[in-house]
Amino acid sequence: MRIRLLIAGGTFDKEYDELTGTLYFKDTHVPEMLRLGRCRLDVAVRTVMMVDSLEMTDADRETILANCRQAKEKRIVITHGTDTMVETARVLAAGVPDKTIVLTGAMVPYAFGSSDGLFNLGSALSFVQVLPPGVSIAMNGRCFPWNRVRKNKDLGHFEEIPA
Amino acid sequence: MRIRLLIAGGTFDKEYDELTGTLYFKDTHVPEMLRLGRCRLDVAVRTVMMVDSLEMTDADRETILANCRQAKEKRIVITHGTDTMVETARVLAAGVPDKTIVLTGAMVPYAFGSSDGLFNLGSALSFVQVLPPGVSIAMNGRCFPWNRVRKNKDLGHFEEIPA
Amino acid sequence: MRIRLLIAGGTFDKEYDELTGTLYFKDTHVPEMLRLGRCRLDVAVRTVMMVDSLEMTDADRETILANCRQAKEKRIVITHGTDTMVETARVLAAGVPDKTIVLTGAMVPYAFGSSDGLFNLGSALSFVQVLPPGVSIAMNGRCFPWNRVRKNKDLGHFEEIPA
Amino acid sequence: MRIRLLIAGGTFDKEYDELTGTLYFKDTHVPEMLRLGRCRLDVAVRTVMMVDSLEMTDADRETILANCRQAKEKRIVITHGTDTMVETARVLAAGVPDKTIVLTGAMVPYAFGSSDGLFNLGSALSFVQVLPPGVSIAMNGRCFPWNRVRKNKDLGHFEEIPA
Repeated sequence: MRIRLLIAGGTFDKEYDELTGTLYFKDTHVPEMLRLGRCRLDVAVRTVMMVDSLEMTDADRETILANCRQAKEKRIVITHGTDTMVETARVLAAGVPDKTIVLTGAMVPYAFGSSDGLFNLGSALSFVQVLPPGVSIAMNGRCFPWNRVRKNKDLGHFEEIPA
Repeated sequence: MRIRLLIAGGTFDKEYDELTGTLYFKDTHVPEMLRLGRCRLDVAVRTVMMVDSLEMTDADRETILANCRQAKEKRIVITHGTDTMVETARVLAAGVPDKTIVLTGAMVPYAFGSSDGLFNLGSALSFVQVLPPGVSIAMNGRCFPWNRVRKNKDLGHFEEIPA
Repeated sequence: MRIRLLIAGGTFDKEYDELTGTLYFKDTHVPEMLRLGRCRLDVAVRTVMMVDSLEMTDADRETILANCRQAKEKRIVITHGTDTMVETARVLAAGVPDKTIVLTGAMVPYAFGSSDGLFNLGSALSFVQVLPPGVSIAMNGRCFPWNRVRKNKDLGHFEEIPA
Repeated sequence: MRIRLLIAGGTFDKEYDELTGTLYFKDTHVPEMLRLGRCRLDVAVRTVMMVDSLEMTDADRETILANCRQAKEKRIVITHGTDTMVETARVLAAGVPDKTIVLTGAMVPYAFGSSDGLFNLGSALSFVQVLPPGVSIAMNGRCFPWNRVRKNKDLGHFEEIPA
């Protein structure tokens, strides 16, 4: 079973710019993370975009949607900024009914020693193998159906929306 | 859903002894790893032993078995040395028919920057939430039923045993 | 010989704020860095301020100057933001003629895995032991008299000013 | 001023072998450490050997001595295992009277996150620039003349021999 891994940027992939003292995007760290995890899954990685999810446009979401539709794989993981992850999940849920899609991200850039990224990536790649078709969000050990979760921006984590 | 996390040692938890230049066990790193992963699962951690799995005895395996049986939780993750992980899994499969148990470990100590441990821990904690009762081994993104896997000691990874 | 170590903030001590996705100051990492370096010098650490050196005021520089004057130690290391390090050095050179003062910093926050901070701290603590009274800047292995150095903001490093 | 950097192995450069669970030597980490420290010195690196200093022979020490003599540079840093660092220093002190030589090492392998190596390397490269000809040992912030220091193997650090 091959898994498609789409990279959309987000905190996951932010780096520190020594010249300006700010955070920015250069290359994705996901392939390095797969090496570190000694990942033995058949994963096909594609960088779709590298954006802060607060700046993600409708057109960007259409691009992610198109990538999910065109993928031959039935199981897809997407690394994505946390701030609008649920919004992208909604678009995918409406447009890709027949695939298992798991979005994940990180609260801290992978390039920082203290990132949750590697834990989340291991988690998302596991959930995607066993869940039925549908769109979920896997963060910090938990996995939520896309329409039952929100980011609590005050606390900095994802939480379930009561039914 | 509360998850029981039993710690049995293994490469996961090895440290470097500055005085002797050798590897040894001190305290487990698992709670620190859960913090790093910002894990938001309800996990009850218990250190059962801290041993190199090559030195694990039948009595040690009985202790792990007893811990699995006594746990109130129906879902259990065990961190364990890779060399005899399958052997312990066999004992648990015979003795704990009604719980979901996932064993995991690491090829490189967590205390090394280059460890796969955080990835594997995220993976094991994910599989254990969704798999039915039974004993599995989760390593490097994959999850194998205990009786379909072996460690390839030449290549340093786990591989499926053909049916 | 006791060394006084004054902390003035700078990139050295910046952290990542998970809630806002920005960099900020919390506690200094310098004591942790001394532990990591297993530093066996007699070092007395004092946090004077935690500021971005671009926002450092004349009053802040007077505070650093007062701390240098009041210190009983004849040898002082100061961790400081790189952008205005030379400016602070000038104030100290005018006001503290009889002590050896070495300013250092980092191009990347220590909390990032890829920081030069530990290297620079080891370097500054070494130069301060052997240099005669005067004010210097130690960065990336080199040590410059304060009035012979400038930060090249395009290249992101310190360089000598030709005599 | 060009500095010669000779690599002789030691804890500094030990790696973890995933297949055997033991420590071994592969390539040196010193160039990577210089990059991390964003070192802006003119350093010429040469790997002379990669050995555990407990296994270093008289012939090995002659090789290091020959390298120091042949080097055009007047300032030399040597990375070396800590256990017999003093012994090698004695050989060099007898055979190289006209150069500044600083030996350094690490209590913990650089490949471990918790290594003192980067701090020590920054320190050694600093001392070597300012000390007069002679052989010294720079460890954990301090610098000792070769004939005034011993490794305390019970405590795991270097200490001064009272005159």
